[in-house]
Amino acid sequence: MDMKTPPEYPTIKDATMTVESGSAVSEPGRKLFRNYDVMHVTLRIVCLSASLASVIVMITAKQKSTLSLYGFDLPVYSKWSFSDSFDYLVGVSAAAGVHSLLQLLMTSRMLLKKSPIISSRKHAWLLFAGDQVFAYAMMSCGSAASGVTNLNRTGIKHSSLPNFCKPLHSFCDRVALSIAFAFFGCFLLAMSSVLDVVWLSEY
Amino acid sequence: MDMKTPPEYPTIKDATMTVESGSAVSEPGRKLFRNYDVMHVTLRIVCLSASLASVIVMITAKQKSTLSLYGFDLPVYSKWSFSDSFDYLVGVSAAAGVHSLLQLLMTSRMLLKKSPIISSRKHAWLLFAGDQVFAYAMMSCGSAASGVTNLNRTGIKHSSLPNFCKPLHSFCDRVALSIAFAFFGCFLLAMSSVLDVVWLSEY
Repeated sequence: MDMKTPPEYPTIKDATMTVESGSAVSEPGRKLFRNYDVMHVTLRIVCLSASLASVIVMITAKQKSTLSLYGFDLPVYSKWSFSDSFDYLVGVSAAAGVHSLLQLLMTSRMLLKKSPIISSRKHAWLLFAGDQVFAYAMMSCGSAASGVTNLNRTGIKHSSLPNFCKPLHSFCDRVALSIAFAFFGCFLLAMSSVLDVVWLSEY
Repeated sequence: MDMKTPPEYPTIKDATMTVESGSAVSEPGRKLFRNYDVMHVTLRIVCLSASLASVIVMITAKQKSTLSLYGFDLPVYSKWSFSDSFDYLVGVSAAAGVHSLLQLLMTSRMLLKKSPIISSRKHAWLLFAGDQVFAYAMMSCGSAASGVTNLNRTGIKHSSLPNFCKPLHSFCDRVALSIAFAFFGCFLLAMSSVLDVVWLSEY
């Protein structure tokens, strides 16, 4: 009679336990994990590169020139570290790069041990929180820097000042490139956090 | 004999179905839903208020003054619409306000029908996407505006210009208040998207 009891469906908790132990995963489940892992690692590598590129392009941005203002020839020397917003961009991009590198190292260790890269729900929530915080920070630093560089480009309207980017065009172009990399990094971190939510919602 | 079969555990799919139909929810489940609904509605109302406050404080920001620059007395008239970043902040805050209002109306309709405010996984994903987009947008506009206002406050270092906020302090204070409301709105939208993830991960 015992043999004839209906097959037990896995409960929600059982499903989590299976994922956690990482042993009794079916073949399609394993394939799904592998796709997931590949996406995760790819996003981390590209994000690390974007953050690094953003930092390097920004810290090499400096230019000397002259600006004529009401008949005066003012010497203008522009360097990234003169603007708080650009400092902020370098700081945040570097931090996001370190975050990506650490996650990449932890993921590689997990993959070498052939275990799934997210070990538990708590781990997934932590990853989600980290990715969200860095995505918001990257969005913030990119926007702050582009607000400032846009002001440099268009001049300051409320006191008829000239366009700073005319004499300093190479500086402004470098800054714009660095900002573009920061926004790209933000997008990648946002995608990472969506992947974390997919994990949380599926397992 | 039928009466003695072991109690059937709900499967993952069953749990989703129960939530979707909104009929056979147990008492603790119902309480959880109610707490969830209350948090959701509260967040929406506060977010709507923050966005509105941000828009209103910004569009009433204007001031006339004079600024002495190298011995010249320049007339300075500052208005929010002179800066692209401030225009951007007003646009995004208004859009986030409309988003919150629409969500609030839809939630109220659901609550009046006594059904759960999130009807399906697709709905939860849509809400998550919307909240994320507006949270990033609010972070972006707040940062862009604060980058510009910080530049106004500290002067522009690469060409020794004076502090604009000394003659225009009331304007700068209003802008700072509006930016603070925008950041608060961003925080609330981020919390809303976390609530959406909680829903996705639990049901």
